[in-house]
Amino acid sequence: MSNTFGKIFRLTSFGESHGKAIGGIIDGCPAGLELDMVQIQKELDRRKPGQSRLTTPRKEEDQVAFYSGVFEGKTTGTPIGFVIQNKDQRSKDYSEIKNVYRPSHADYTYDAKYGLRDYRGGGRSSARETAIRVVGGAIARQVLAVKGISIGAYVQRIGPVALEQDIAFEDIALSENSLVRCPVSNISEKMEAAVQTAIAEKDSLGGVVAAKIIGLPAGLGEPVFDKFHAALGHAMLGINAVKGFEIGSGFAAAEMNGSVHNDAFEVQDEQVRTKTNHSGGVQGGLTNGEEVLFRVAFKPVATIGQVQQTVSNEKDPVEMAAKGRHDPCVVPRAVPIVEAMAALVTVDMLLRNQTSRIDQL
Amino acid sequence: MSNTFGKIFRLTSFGESHGKAIGGIIDGCPAGLELDMVQIQKELDRRKPGQSRLTTPRKEEDQVAFYSGVFEGKTTGTPIGFVIQNKDQRSKDYSEIKNVYRPSHADYTYDAKYGLRDYRGGGRSSARETAIRVVGGAIARQVLAVKGISIGAYVQRIGPVALEQDIAFEDIALSENSLVRCPVSNISEKMEAAVQTAIAEKDSLGGVVAAKIIGLPAGLGEPVFDKFHAALGHAMLGINAVKGFEIGSGFAAAEMNGSVHNDAFEVQDEQVRTKTNHSGGVQGGLTNGEEVLFRVAFKPVATIGQVQQTVSNEKDPVEMAAKGRHDPCVVPRAVPIVEAMAALVTVDMLLRNQTSRIDQL
Amino acid sequence: MSNTFGKIFRLTSFGESHGKAIGGIIDGCPAGLELDMVQIQKELDRRKPGQSRLTTPRKEEDQVAFYSGVFEGKTTGTPIGFVIQNKDQRSKDYSEIKNVYRPSHADYTYDAKYGLRDYRGGGRSSARETAIRVVGGAIARQVLAVKGISIGAYVQRIGPVALEQDIAFEDIALSENSLVRCPVSNISEKMEAAVQTAIAEKDSLGGVVAAKIIGLPAGLGEPVFDKFHAALGHAMLGINAVKGFEIGSGFAAAEMNGSVHNDAFEVQDEQVRTKTNHSGGVQGGLTNGEEVLFRVAFKPVATIGQVQQTVSNEKDPVEMAAKGRHDPCVVPRAVPIVEAMAALVTVDMLLRNQTSRIDQL
Amino acid sequence: MSNTFGKIFRLTSFGESHGKAIGGIIDGCPAGLELDMVQIQKELDRRKPGQSRLTTPRKEEDQVAFYSGVFEGKTTGTPIGFVIQNKDQRSKDYSEIKNVYRPSHADYTYDAKYGLRDYRGGGRSSARETAIRVVGGAIARQVLAVKGISIGAYVQRIGPVALEQDIAFEDIALSENSLVRCPVSNISEKMEAAVQTAIAEKDSLGGVVAAKIIGLPAGLGEPVFDKFHAALGHAMLGINAVKGFEIGSGFAAAEMNGSVHNDAFEVQDEQVRTKTNHSGGVQGGLTNGEEVLFRVAFKPVATIGQVQQTVSNEKDPVEMAAKGRHDPCVVPRAVPIVEAMAALVTVDMLLRNQTSRIDQL
Repeated sequence: MSNTFGKIFRLTSFGESHGKAIGGIIDGCPAGLELDMVQIQKELDRRKPGQSRLTTPRKEEDQVAFYSGVFEGKTTGTPIGFVIQNKDQRSKDYSEIKNVYRPSHADYTYDAKYGLRDYRGGGRSSARETAIRVVGGAIARQVLAVKGISIGAYVQRIGPVALEQDIAFEDIALSENSLVRCPVSNISEKMEAAVQTAIAEKDSLGGVVAAKIIGLPAGLGEPVFDKFHAALGHAMLGINAVKGFEIGSGFAAAEMNGSVHNDAFEVQDEQVRTKTNHSGGVQGGLTNGEEVLFRVAFKPVATIGQVQQTVSNEKDPVEMAAKGRHDPCVVPRAVPIVEAMAALVTVDMLLRNQTSRIDQL
Repeated sequence: MSNTFGKIFRLTSFGESHGKAIGGIIDGCPAGLELDMVQIQKELDRRKPGQSRLTTPRKEEDQVAFYSGVFEGKTTGTPIGFVIQNKDQRSKDYSEIKNVYRPSHADYTYDAKYGLRDYRGGGRSSARETAIRVVGGAIARQVLAVKGISIGAYVQRIGPVALEQDIAFEDIALSENSLVRCPVSNISEKMEAAVQTAIAEKDSLGGVVAAKIIGLPAGLGEPVFDKFHAALGHAMLGINAVKGFEIGSGFAAAEMNGSVHNDAFEVQDEQVRTKTNHSGGVQGGLTNGEEVLFRVAFKPVATIGQVQQTVSNEKDPVEMAAKGRHDPCVVPRAVPIVEAMAALVTVDMLLRNQTSRIDQL
Repeated sequence: MSNTFGKIFRLTSFGESHGKAIGGIIDGCPAGLELDMVQIQKELDRRKPGQSRLTTPRKEEDQVAFYSGVFEGKTTGTPIGFVIQNKDQRSKDYSEIKNVYRPSHADYTYDAKYGLRDYRGGGRSSARETAIRVVGGAIARQVLAVKGISIGAYVQRIGPVALEQDIAFEDIALSENSLVRCPVSNISEKMEAAVQTAIAEKDSLGGVVAAKIIGLPAGLGEPVFDKFHAALGHAMLGINAVKGFEIGSGFAAAEMNGSVHNDAFEVQDEQVRTKTNHSGGVQGGLTNGEEVLFRVAFKPVATIGQVQQTVSNEKDPVEMAAKGRHDPCVVPRAVPIVEAMAALVTVDMLLRNQTSRIDQL
Repeated sequence: MSNTFGKIFRLTSFGESHGKAIGGIIDGCPAGLELDMVQIQKELDRRKPGQSRLTTPRKEEDQVAFYSGVFEGKTTGTPIGFVIQNKDQRSKDYSEIKNVYRPSHADYTYDAKYGLRDYRGGGRSSARETAIRVVGGAIARQVLAVKGISIGAYVQRIGPVALEQDIAFEDIALSENSLVRCPVSNISEKMEAAVQTAIAEKDSLGGVVAAKIIGLPAGLGEPVFDKFHAALGHAMLGINAVKGFEIGSGFAAAEMNGSVHNDAFEVQDEQVRTKTNHSGGVQGGLTNGEEVLFRVAFKPVATIGQVQQTVSNEKDPVEMAAKGRHDPCVVPRAVPIVEAMAALVTVDMLLRNQTSRIDQL
């Protein structure tokens, strides 16, 4: 089940970076949803490379084609198959990458697991695969929208530059005006400068994406193993380059006292609410109706222009340096991927919750 | 599937804090494993309350009884059913907890999801349920031991007191000499003092558990959604009170440059190894044969003796303060739970990897 | 997942014939269902051996104990753990069965798969395990009852004696008056005579169980792989001794013309109905609102008193004859098991169908 | 999970009869398998319509395109994505079928479940979808071939004409010389005559496909719910138009005595074998090393040229008669589909069995 995500709303994905195409199947999408195809393509465009001078200039014109599951503009309840052609798959010279294990890439581990690998452009381990998740997430978001649930993410840190203040959900959209997807302009500028420095030094940067989910009913998630934030964490840690995940107070909670950390309940507008939100919108593994808040840490890009020591698949020492231009920092492009995975988790939990009570069948 | 963990080696769990019993079923354990029952009970004892003056004095004599799946000392390949009786289930006065939503507990969210809840002692949301995971993990560890794989965890932080140095795997066992399961004695003493202070202040503390897995072959984990550390993160975030998870460099990676973060490959003893281990033993979602390193953040215990504001299930404002003594810090007792969940993930990934290559069937 | 049945309403089962206990966990039962415990025990009693002179005289006092998931008489949405003690587990002399592969039993295949087996009383392969399914099915039936869905089964054939006429759903209950669970008394008597003959000849008999499900809404089941009757067939073929399954017209359909077999639609009481029901209530894999009709074929019991040729686990030729008395025909006792498995399939399909339409979320 | 089949070797399918394309994803295929693409296409050709004057003259040139998971001729262990374009999707006049519920078709039940349907050519309920299964099965067979396992099926009955004798596995291939895929020529001729009669009468016929699996090791399958033949039955009953399934002696077992039905063990060439094979190669749910024998019953095709009574989606009575020519009997074309589904079950069970013993990890 490694390439399927979700229990009821399920995305199954295929495709390598330089194969003929990538694509997926969404199974379990409720019937009768009017699909906004323009919006789906817009989400894909947010992820594509070459959006600015800060990202890789490789142009990927990712056009998604839907083959099934939609009829007269509506979902039919049958699986939605879709394909994105890999246009830029001319036969390049992969002789170096073919026999060399690039540091902190998946070359060695794929060989160890499978005994062979499609080395062209990283094959299955390439982040190109995340385009499929963005398509799945875009459809998930349209289901969520019917129930008034929205998701937003933005760049909270790039390398040394961090945005310390909290961002209101409605201000997250401002990040789309920023080359680095940071909603506060002066911090955005500092982040851009940091990226430019990394480019100049043939180096790369990591960062943090922060995200919020609003409009959730209380009670989503499953007790014990599939707590809402456990499923979220699983989703986020499955994104390339992610090294950490935290919900609400996160690692900072480890340094807090209970008397400070506890979120006191109160009643507002006849709703049970919490005064603070250290819980990040999840208590006992279930949503409590507050904003779900989480953060995702990305390591710096492994591909850098500097000379690095490594070994060949014959176990000989080798020196290598990446040629051409590469993304010095993927964190801005990770924003729509984080949103997509959050949408997949949320819609699945929404659907899983439809059978929790006998009086609501 | 909320109460089942794993794809091949699967633990299904049942039980509430103050019901008749808790228990579980392990399905998919390979046949022919000689089970060390003493070792399983020993793991359970590491988790039980009342181990020291720092933890709750409630004595839980958790005796696990195995009902199936073991014959003449060996696993038979059929499901292993086990039960732990809840001895301390006398009819208490739950009138207060029954109608009140305790801050940062699961009372409100369970009611929201299910329309009712077993309020006695927290019911299903109680950490008592983790005893089942420890039993499952103890059996998983015995499978792993056959393949030379070991897991160790220790307390790296309690509230403000942190252990900054790295601990070699073989030194992790020293933590069993410490009341707070910290392997370095002078830090352990500071942690104990911090806990004593919290007790005096009727407050509670959070902390961090650090863990290592050694002896792993390269290639465990699944590309894309079920990366090794994504499954680990899912497991850890499913433990009560966990707010964050990181693998290898974790959140610190967000502030690092690629030239520093990349783990250069080299050959040692004819093995491909990395000079550093920022990856935490996982690259491209698959183990690379290095130590797997991860950290888990726990929030402070929600139950405190101080007076707190909250609401009743009738939405009336209420003041409450926990009576009796409670764990001021669960992090030391979380150590065997972290190890157990790591064992469940690892054994499942080991088994899932048995079908990855046609030449190894 | 071999010992878990269902996708949303999930029964996980453990236990061997002569281990300490058997039991199970039901996960995914909606919260708020008032459980009728007497009814559950009644179902168990229908399955137990020793009900009449025609079945094995071994008395199994199967008392089910519920350990979790029920509070103040209602399901809580958390897993329902239950255990049935194996009372009759005194240490017998199993020396013969231990080393001999009984013809048409599972002794040889278990050894081949696992390298060892719990040979006492057949271990996991014993039909004793079906008691767990009856408990799960009894709870499933109570969920179904809330939605007006009922299930009934009866013995349609024992060896050479068959009941050729159709039985109306409300007459199925008459079979509880029959020692062989056949609702038509003169056929029942012939069946009983056939069983008496088999006993006298130290032989055994097979038979057929017929079943109906009524009150189903149209649309249950899943297109393609998980058609309603495919899931039903899976369930039935998983019952011990079952060799065949058919829905509606079944094998007879192979000999019919389309012009005869097709079920013409008509409108009755503003409902779309079919004039005939060769489809057996399922079209395109989905229920159509008509009665679901299916039949299940059981082979004769493998344990017989006659001398048989076989081999030992050392591959030596051996003669053997079963000692003591055994069930000459399990088909009457299979009736509640067929009903239970049908209930598990139906409730799971009912719950899976809760997310099929966006306008019904 | 309705559109995914299998636990480890998993086929997920998408596509409607007259959408843009159909296709699928195979996940869990072991790496390193040399794929014979010609053989895959050959299997597809066996299923396609228009193979003879007895089947529909509609020409479907089903060309499968593989998009991922294969590199330099070998499987890579990553998901294999494939697509078959629907070439013949010109805009026809569907006005009649759009508003009418065809008898014994899926029109009504799809509407009942989803609230809408893609009515063109039957949409998802069309047997066109089985082409995907044939592709999946063709790859599964290549995995099985590495382990010496083969599958063969043939037509055993069409309407009133049955082949009563047993067919040796090596003679099954003779059926490819027959227009109706019956390996015995004089019976084949009678079957063809029966089909011609049905065509003349604007009627249709059902039939039975018989199949064998050889080369299986003992021990495949899972006890209790996922018995080998339960999984097989699930697979077969999921094929369009299937009404019944039986393993080994099947329904005939219900009329047999245990003394006749039991398969005595003996030793041949140091192997434990059975003298007879009423078990059909499965005992206790696990393969015993003998040939697996099973039969699948198909109803007559629902689409016939005769006038039929039915209702519209407005619940008005309607008369209809299918126009053009249609398959009067799909059973010959079902043979490769039965083989494909059997291959998918068998390869999945083979892979699931890789973790059954600790000494074989």
